[in-house]
Amino acid sequence: MINQEYKSMLSGKSVIRQLSEYAIARGKKIGYENVFDFSLGNPSVPAPQSLTDTMIRLLQEKDPMELHGYSPSLGNPVYKEKIAASLNRRFQMNYTAAHIFPTTGAAGALAHAVRAVTTPGDEVLTFAPFFPEYGPYISGTGAQLKVVPADTRTFQINFDEFEKMLTQNVTAVLINTPNNPSGIAYSTETLRKLAQILKDKSAAFGHTIFLISDEPYREIIFKGADAPYVSKFYANTLSCYSFSKSLSLPGERIGYVAVNPACEDAEIIVPMCGQISRGTGHNCPPSIIQLAVAEVCDETADLSVYETNMNLIYDTLTDLGFTCVKPGGTFYIFPKALEESSVSFCNKARDYDLILVPGDSFGAPGFFRMAYCIDTEKVQRAMPRLRQFVREIYPDVANGKV
Amino acid sequence: MINQEYKSMLSGKSVIRQLSEYAIARGKKIGYENVFDFSLGNPSVPAPQSLTDTMIRLLQEKDPMELHGYSPSLGNPVYKEKIAASLNRRFQMNYTAAHIFPTTGAAGALAHAVRAVTTPGDEVLTFAPFFPEYGPYISGTGAQLKVVPADTRTFQINFDEFEKMLTQNVTAVLINTPNNPSGIAYSTETLRKLAQILKDKSAAFGHTIFLISDEPYREIIFKGADAPYVSKFYANTLSCYSFSKSLSLPGERIGYVAVNPACEDAEIIVPMCGQISRGTGHNCPPSIIQLAVAEVCDETADLSVYETNMNLIYDTLTDLGFTCVKPGGTFYIFPKALEESSVSFCNKARDYDLILVPGDSFGAPGFFRMAYCIDTEKVQRAMPRLRQFVREIYPDVANGKV
Repeated sequence: MINQEYKSMLSGKSVIRQLSEYAIARGKKIGYENVFDFSLGNPSVPAPQSLTDTMIRLLQEKDPMELHGYSPSLGNPVYKEKIAASLNRRFQMNYTAAHIFPTTGAAGALAHAVRAVTTPGDEVLTFAPFFPEYGPYISGTGAQLKVVPADTRTFQINFDEFEKMLTQNVTAVLINTPNNPSGIAYSTETLRKLAQILKDKSAAFGHTIFLISDEPYREIIFKGADAPYVSKFYANTLSCYSFSKSLSLPGERIGYVAVNPACEDAEIIVPMCGQISRGTGHNCPPSIIQLAVAEVCDETADLSVYETNMNLIYDTLTDLGFTCVKPGGTFYIFPKALEESSVSFCNKARDYDLILVPGDSFGAPGFFRMAYCIDTEKVQRAMPRLRQFVREIYPDVANGKV
Repeated sequence: MINQEYKSMLSGKSVIRQLSEYAIARGKKIGYENVFDFSLGNPSVPAPQSLTDTMIRLLQEKDPMELHGYSPSLGNPVYKEKIAASLNRRFQMNYTAAHIFPTTGAAGALAHAVRAVTTPGDEVLTFAPFFPEYGPYISGTGAQLKVVPADTRTFQINFDEFEKMLTQNVTAVLINTPNNPSGIAYSTETLRKLAQILKDKSAAFGHTIFLISDEPYREIIFKGADAPYVSKFYANTLSCYSFSKSLSLPGERIGYVAVNPACEDAEIIVPMCGQISRGTGHNCPPSIIQLAVAEVCDETADLSVYETNMNLIYDTLTDLGFTCVKPGGTFYIFPKALEESSVSFCNKARDYDLILVPGDSFGAPGFFRMAYCIDTEKVQRAMPRLRQFVREIYPDVANGKV
């Protein structure tokens, strides 16, 4: 019989996707260049030419049997070695190839990491605001996701609420820094405090609480941001990465889990991921993508546009009277809406062809997300429209009366 | 805490992999050309040049943002349309793009198909001899795999045993034709009878029993074989395919689920697969691979070597007195061992540097598998060694006394 659980999921449509579909439909009427679409988090810069050149060279020069052959079940050793060496050099870690498990993007990485360190029924805590896909990602493993309310003042961790919710049933904590949707990177102070609590509570509960760090935006960091490498703070960390954003390769589904060498059971977590793959149908990311990314894993696309866009938007927002924490990275910003309901606020903005996403589905109602992975020229054209919208709909705010 | 179930799986090592590792180690001593390694089912012919050319052209000509961008969550429409058109033309079906769900190989296809049409706890029946990975593949979905004993005379379906095991708890039946390890394709007669039983029992039980057809060897069919397209016989069929074998692309992980348009709930199964992906971390096969395979999906690598090899081996085996059903396709053959224990038989063969896989892990003890996806020249050199082995170890058989 058809599975009723998956069937019932069909009715729940993603707000982001709905807004994106609206933007495209609206674009067909008035020209997409006239729709200020801040809905989707898709990279807006091309992959580096070196990636293209490497793939062409592999296709021209490498024996197709080897190029397109099965990867070993724990991943291509060249890819694993290059990733380990890159992380070690950049973050002063001591990974070996045996600590790296290649995955189909960050989604694949999380699917493996969570299954490896939890048992169905366990609780996994994450912090608002959070990427809404964590819901189905975690429930698909059999674990239960619980969301710690946001510290809306800083979008660092709300430690009071965290300590209340960190009970015996929690076996893993999932963080995302730099964060989608807030754009905030967890500071050295935040990560130190988090690590201390996890150590203390692991000892108190008599079981290790693992830290799963989802960091696809790790390479998109803005000037002056304090955005340290998470795994340095806490040994029992599994870092989940995707090259989707840093190399602008979201469709190629390439990432990894990196297990801290000092982690409990570090030597078996990657082999366990190989076992997990058998049940999920994962079986290694594509061979040619592993080989190509291995060669360019230290490079990035030209990511500077995101900081340019962020500054343009942040300056306009603050000038207009918005309350807004300045992003330390990513291509998102998460200001407070100008009325209590961010859904109502975003609906009104839509009438100005400004496509903004309400914070409700990120676990932070009252805020809204703008994804500024779009051309700077369009961001520049959007700012007068944003001013017009605020002036006309929220005149008191625009006049500095609120 | 570390997941104990996945941890316990680490101790169970695949017999095929152990034999393959032995063959490689032995090859380092005596030269791999002198090890007659029939252990692994890896394609031995290169991908077609057209695939390489297509990938290079895509990399040279296509906007990298589009080429490497996210696929829509239900897959690239071009890939889906081309697959549907190809199946329709070749097998007189009436698929549309909406019936095709792109997956990371056949493993990904099975992971989605089984989850879509079963609920954890349901029974899934398959038929010996069977691909041993079905164990972890199915148990990973939460369903229970039960294996119907083989009809060792023909390696078609043992219908008597099947009808005994086809109880109310069974919601899906999983077949693999042409079959790994037997090389046998299910005949028109077999599929007709199977379909009739599934129809009758679905009516009797008051629930649909879905047929999941795993057919990665569909394009490797030998002269005279009766190997019809499964989905034509039974509406409630989900066909799981991989291009690993037909295009010699096993490492690129590209395949699909094709839902028969007359299947119950046909219109929602592909969208349900999209929901399933969220929990498994699948999220579409790589964009460039979908686009490239879309263009060459009607082609194959030069697969003729497999039939040449099969004939060489089959003739030698029958000449030597082996009992052996002649394969209708694949690159496997599954003869009866010359003593009761095929493990003992294969161990003795190993002393002659003949690497054969005992049938036990395929659910058919007493038989052994030879994977002949190797160079014909090597098959030719292996035949005298096989003759020597039989003559020296089983002289009665060699002399026609058994």
